Amino acid sequence: MKRLQSYLAGSWHEGQGDPIVLHNPATESPVAELRKATALGEALRYARETGGPALRALGFPQRGALLSRLAKLVHTHREELLDLAMENGGNTRGDAKFDVDGGTAVLAAYAELASKLGDAPWLLEGDVEPIMRGSKIRAQHVLCPRVGVAIHVNAFNFPAWGMLGKLAVALACGMPVLSKPATSTAVLAARIAEILVAEGELPAGAFSLLLGPAGDLLDHVGPQDVVAFTGSADTGARIRGHAQVVAHGVRVNVEADSLNAVVLGPDVGPGSELFDLAIRDLVTELTQKAGQKCTATRRILVPQERLDDVRQVLRERLADVATKTGDPQQKEVRMGPLSTAQQLHDAQAGLRALAGSATRIAGDPARRSFVGVPEGKGWFLEPILFEATAAAALDPAAAFHRIEVFAPVATLLPYDGSVAAAARIVAAGEGSLVTTVYSDDRVFVGEAVTALAPLLGRLVIADEKTANASLSPGCVFPVVNHGGPGRAGGGGELGGRAGMQLYLQRTTIQGGGSQLARLLGTGVG
Amino acid sequence: MKRLQSYLAGSWHEGQGDPIVLHNPATESPVAELRKATALGEALRYARETGGPALRALGFPQRGALLSRLAKLVHTHREELLDLAMENGGNTRGDAKFDVDGGTAVLAAYAELASKLGDAPWLLEGDVEPIMRGSKIRAQHVLCPRVGVAIHVNAFNFPAWGMLGKLAVALACGMPVLSKPATSTAVLAARIAEILVAEGELPAGAFSLLLGPAGDLLDHVGPQDVVAFTGSADTGARIRGHAQVVAHGVRVNVEADSLNAVVLGPDVGPGSELFDLAIRDLVTELTQKAGQKCTATRRILVPQERLDDVRQVLRERLADVATKTGDPQQKEVRMGPLSTAQQLHDAQAGLRALAGSATRIAGDPARRSFVGVPEGKGWFLEPILFEATAAAALDPAAAFHRIEVFAPVATLLPYDGSVAAAARIVAAGEGSLVTTVYSDDRVFVGEAVTALAPLLGRLVIADEKTANASLSPGCVFPVVNHGGPGRAGGGGELGGRAGMQLYLQRTTIQGGGSQLARLLGTGVG
Repeated sequence: MKRLQSYLAGSWHEGQGDPIVLHNPATESPVAELRKATALGEALRYARETGGPALRALGFPQRGALLSRLAKLVHTHREELLDLAMENGGNTRGDAKFDVDGGTAVLAAYAELASKLGDAPWLLEGDVEPIMRGSKIRAQHVLCPRVGVAIHVNAFNFPAWGMLGKLAVALACGMPVLSKPATSTAVLAARIAEILVAEGELPAGAFSLLLGPAGDLLDHVGPQDVVAFTGSADTGARIRGHAQVVAHGVRVNVEADSLNAVVLGPDVGPGSELFDLAIRDLVTELTQKAGQKCTATRRILVPQERLDDVRQVLRERLADVATKTGDPQQKEVRMGPLSTAQQLHDAQAGLRALAGSATRIAGDPARRSFVGVPEGKGWFLEPILFEATAAAALDPAAAFHRIEVFAPVATLLPYDGSVAAAARIVAAGEGSLVTTVYSDDRVFVGEAVTALAPLLGRLVIADEKTANASLSPGCVFPVVNHGGPGRAGGGGELGGRAGMQLYLQRTTIQGGGSQLARLLGTGVG
Repeated sequence: MKRLQSYLAGSWHEGQGDPIVLHNPATESPVAELRKATALGEALRYARETGGPALRALGFPQRGALLSRLAKLVHTHREELLDLAMENGGNTRGDAKFDVDGGTAVLAAYAELASKLGDAPWLLEGDVEPIMRGSKIRAQHVLCPRVGVAIHVNAFNFPAWGMLGKLAVALACGMPVLSKPATSTAVLAARIAEILVAEGELPAGAFSLLLGPAGDLLDHVGPQDVVAFTGSADTGARIRGHAQVVAHGVRVNVEADSLNAVVLGPDVGPGSELFDLAIRDLVTELTQKAGQKCTATRRILVPQERLDDVRQVLRERLADVATKTGDPQQKEVRMGPLSTAQQLHDAQAGLRALAGSATRIAGDPARRSFVGVPEGKGWFLEPILFEATAAAALDPAAAFHRIEVFAPVATLLPYDGSVAAAARIVAAGEGSLVTTVYSDDRVFVGEAVTALAPLLGRLVIADEKTANASLSPGCVFPVVNHGGPGRAGGGGELGGRAGMQLYLQRTTIQGGGSQLARLLGTGVG
């Protein structure tokens, strides 16, 4: 069996102790094993002291060129990587592309962005200003690379995009990266790491890979380090509250649970292109990656008078996907398994919780037979749809507002078609990554933007005019903000230049105008 | 005795339980009392539900007009407020102006800034961009007011500036404020609150005042709330790790301990204007507010060959201040007491710790007789200067790199005149609010900016040319970033528009180009 290795302090390590076995979630066959890594303090120090100076010496455009090289490199190995995503991730080929090509796209986007940021060791933010009216002394904010390590703790669902997306932004900013993939799906991330290390011409210490448990990693963080975490709210809370993280004021970004919503506007009826788009997007957002996507739609707000239409068509479409759920190696399969037995177990528990607040109207959680695998094998769940009453939809204590079932599962929530009610329902989720409004009613959309935007990291507006160009709202592009307030973790990643703030320190440089002009290349101000 | 009241949920409350007595720290006479407030969850809900919508309905320019009115109002009551600062804060009249006028200046600065931000309910950030090359779908970041409460927990040393500075930024952003001053010096903050409430024409719920212990306040925070805290690292850590804060992803800004440094460049010798400026600033930064200033200088890096000069002149100047330390009501007094008996006790403990790493070369911690007060009365400490060896200066474990003695106390640290050594010494403080470099050597300054900036929230460059216009580096102007990485808490406040990010949610609005142009007033992109 394949033995995966960590790459720490400039060399590969098998780790020690009992092997942890990774599986194909469709067949439950073992595909690789790994062992717990050690000497993590030394690994962080090496990254900080060797990788940091080397990356900072490059400047933004040269780091952009590095990212461009990595993007091409990953693309060169694309077929092999897609196969690994299918084998260890339970991905369909479409799911695998979403992950791998998504990662390549972030590398390419930040390569281009960094190429335009100039050769200074910092970015200028805002304008040079007098510190007070009439003063000869000026102030200019600069954003400079933090002189620590970017520690990336990624989720199991996007081993490629998660790793490469975070890596792209940190490297663009000049911070060395220690990347810790989720253990269950680490085969893909480990292979990408091998490729980057072998062929990426990365400066020594710029990249490290930690496989398996994080061990005592956080006991060794320092005041200039950054931790970017994607995963469960519980683990996010443990990281935020970790004694060493708190003691050293380590910067932490968390992207956690999110009960993303879709709001169907009262003007959108069956037969319209926008209605069809909404249904198509909903099916994608419920079933892509078997619903194990942080941006997947969990709550579907439908005007009461459209409920029958939406219910009917969604049940048909989801039933179709259900018949094509199984081993992704089979050509006709459109949806694969969940990633692990534990994920399936948690999803089943979540379904029982949802059943306390809503009625299941599609999908059978007990189904045991799926395409291309023996009965009872594989960690499968067919698409499940719940429906709540209008009264329950407005209850912030309802399970569908509190529990993210990380699986192909969503709940229909009828509402009265007003923005006020929609906002109340969306807000009951306590902060989400994304919500989409489907409407051509300009007043409705205008009010929805004001009411919903503060609750979200991203608000997608879909209208008839752009329906043909629209992309499913769960797709996170490098230029959009990825993160959300409250339950979603309160963080922000990507979003073009905005996302670079995570790895940069804002510092005001204060001095005489001509002094600043010479030092920073600003105007005299 | 004056009974201070909390202003919660739109009315004044005496609180309940045993009175907490506030003192004049120069004479130890009681000056006021207050009692613990209750029903804090209700107070937060009132602010969130009544104050929030009212403030958001105003828009940026109207909120700017409100701040302008508040600035004038505070200025109208200036003399009364200065007297209170002297009485309850132990401030000299100069210290009191620094606090009160500083607060007025932040109100005025954000009034002006907000007046220029347009009438939209959000700020645009960056440009509208295609979500991917060739797509008709665009993305635009907006920053919109968070729909929660801004909870401000302030330190005892700046009851006016701390409260008004935080208030100005939050109100400019449209967030209602619940302000909790430090108990020991709450007389000034309570009086300002009275003035704001009585004459400020604030919308109902826009401002609340919580006096005394925070009680169960944090048990009631929600996902859209923001906590901005200034104070000790320990309390900062407790806030960050609070279960409800963590569970709801509440945004937290911490400004905590900071071992601010001054670096005298190797080119700066006695007799130069720059040398004189450095000495003048050092005396100010050691003794203003009795050294109880988060931006006060704690570590003074001096080239080995200048050590005798600096030591001699500083000892003379500090000895002069020592003879003028006493009750600020006395005309000749230049430095008042520490704020509380506990502060004096903690400072004495800190002095003992510093004595393990450096030698005391000026000041007597045991002195008991001060100007205008009976022997043994008042919480006084005369200016104290330590000096370390060059070897100790480079030791990150040395007490002066780890312990902030919040009093008129600093340590001379000889270094070899190189930027590398200076950066190593500054970095040993693990992140600070501000460091100042005094030099006319362009190479030295240039290297110093690159090496020091990431370790700081603000870097001040002082040169001969602007020496006459320079302002002491501990002065925080509204346009400069106030906060620092690591030990300094990892936060950022003020800094003009950058500081508003704390109270705004970044949200990407994604949709068709003409749709975004209509909704957001952007170009079509």
